[in-house]
Amino acid sequence: MDMQEAHPYIPKDLQLSGYVPIGLSQSTIVGVYLLCSVLVVSFIWMLSGRCRNISKVDRLLMCWWVFTGLTHMVLEGYFVFSPNFYREKVPRYLAEVWKEYSKGDSRYVARDSAVIAVEGITVVLEGPACILAAYAIGGKKSYSYLLQLAISLGQLYGTIVYFVTAFLEGDNFAVSPFYYYSYYVFANGFWILVPTMILIRCWKRICTAVRIHEQKKTKASKD
Amino acid sequence: MDMQEAHPYIPKDLQLSGYVPIGLSQSTIVGVYLLCSVLVVSFIWMLSGRCRNISKVDRLLMCWWVFTGLTHMVLEGYFVFSPNFYREKVPRYLAEVWKEYSKGDSRYVARDSAVIAVEGITVVLEGPACILAAYAIGGKKSYSYLLQLAISLGQLYGTIVYFVTAFLEGDNFAVSPFYYYSYYVFANGFWILVPTMILIRCWKRICTAVRIHEQKKTKASKD
Repeated sequence: MDMQEAHPYIPKDLQLSGYVPIGLSQSTIVGVYLLCSVLVVSFIWMLSGRCRNISKVDRLLMCWWVFTGLTHMVLEGYFVFSPNFYREKVPRYLAEVWKEYSKGDSRYVARDSAVIAVEGITVVLEGPACILAAYAIGGKKSYSYLLQLAISLGQLYGTIVYFVTAFLEGDNFAVSPFYYYSYYVFANGFWILVPTMILIRCWKRICTAVRIHEQKKTKASKD
Repeated sequence: MDMQEAHPYIPKDLQLSGYVPIGLSQSTIVGVYLLCSVLVVSFIWMLSGRCRNISKVDRLLMCWWVFTGLTHMVLEGYFVFSPNFYREKVPRYLAEVWKEYSKGDSRYVARDSAVIAVEGITVVLEGPACILAAYAIGGKKSYSYLLQLAISLGQLYGTIVYFVTAFLEGDNFAVSPFYYYSYYVFANGFWILVPTMILIRCWKRICTAVRIHEQKKTKASKD
């Protein structure tokens, strides 16, 4: 007889053979992530201060890109390449993160293919690109705005697919409204809000550069 | 007793209550699409010839954007907003298109949520943006390259999600290798190939413009 371990996720009839309950508390899981994030942001803030002629906005953007890049590669990277994370017997931090997050969206523990596809693209393509974006800002590369715009578009596209597929499948994957709003809506909201702001900023900058470049070219050809 | 109409799609156990078989032949369905496409492209090619100082590449790009924009809005638009297309009793061309295409990917007739999410974004956001891109090229707008790059990135992201979700779900949605390669691989391949070429072209153009703009700004501030 297959002993089905009870799991806390919704829908209740979700089959999770070999599920091992969460070993760490919610405050530990969320606390470690927030602490690591603060450390990363502080480190990049200090490091970026050594770049020549760099604005505070650009330093903040470097912090964002390293923070989101590491979140993509470490946290989401573990998820994508560990299909059996919910069976981890020894409490391993990264597995615990996804067992906890699945309370807000059980499609993670159920390995929904749309979620894995979006997360896969995020991990493999966007993660390294985020680190490159931080480097491009610090090194004042000419592709800096364009790369930031491209990644932000990707993040927005991914988050929209993530929300729309949940909606189409009945939007019933959270244990309670608390987890629905705090994990699913609030946490993901950052990846709508920040990419949108970066997108608008980069769009304006690039358009201005292209417009002035074209005007000068037209003027030069007339002279 | 529910009379289950036999359908040609794979997997065979797919439930399609009320399915009405295809009324038009494959050559009619594909032929009408190709003919309409040739007419649209010819019309835009002639129209774009009236734009001042426009290169042949830009005229070709205007043809592409109107062609892909109309495909997104008309063909894919019908699919997204007609969940019951496979029950259409009177042969309606747009319903027949998707009954036929589903032989290459039954997730269309089965209304897979990842497919609908990607198609929804394509129809609502990318479709109108494609028409705007054609207008921007013709009107030599400063946002022309940026808009083309943004849409191409969206098309690539969507096509990757489309392929990856099929792969994750077992990649067994085609009636035969013929439909798999002609509809699923070959037809979709265009939306990998063309957006990639446009992406590279726009990326180079924008980077050049930004680099020259930045150099002049630095030089001006030094003078």
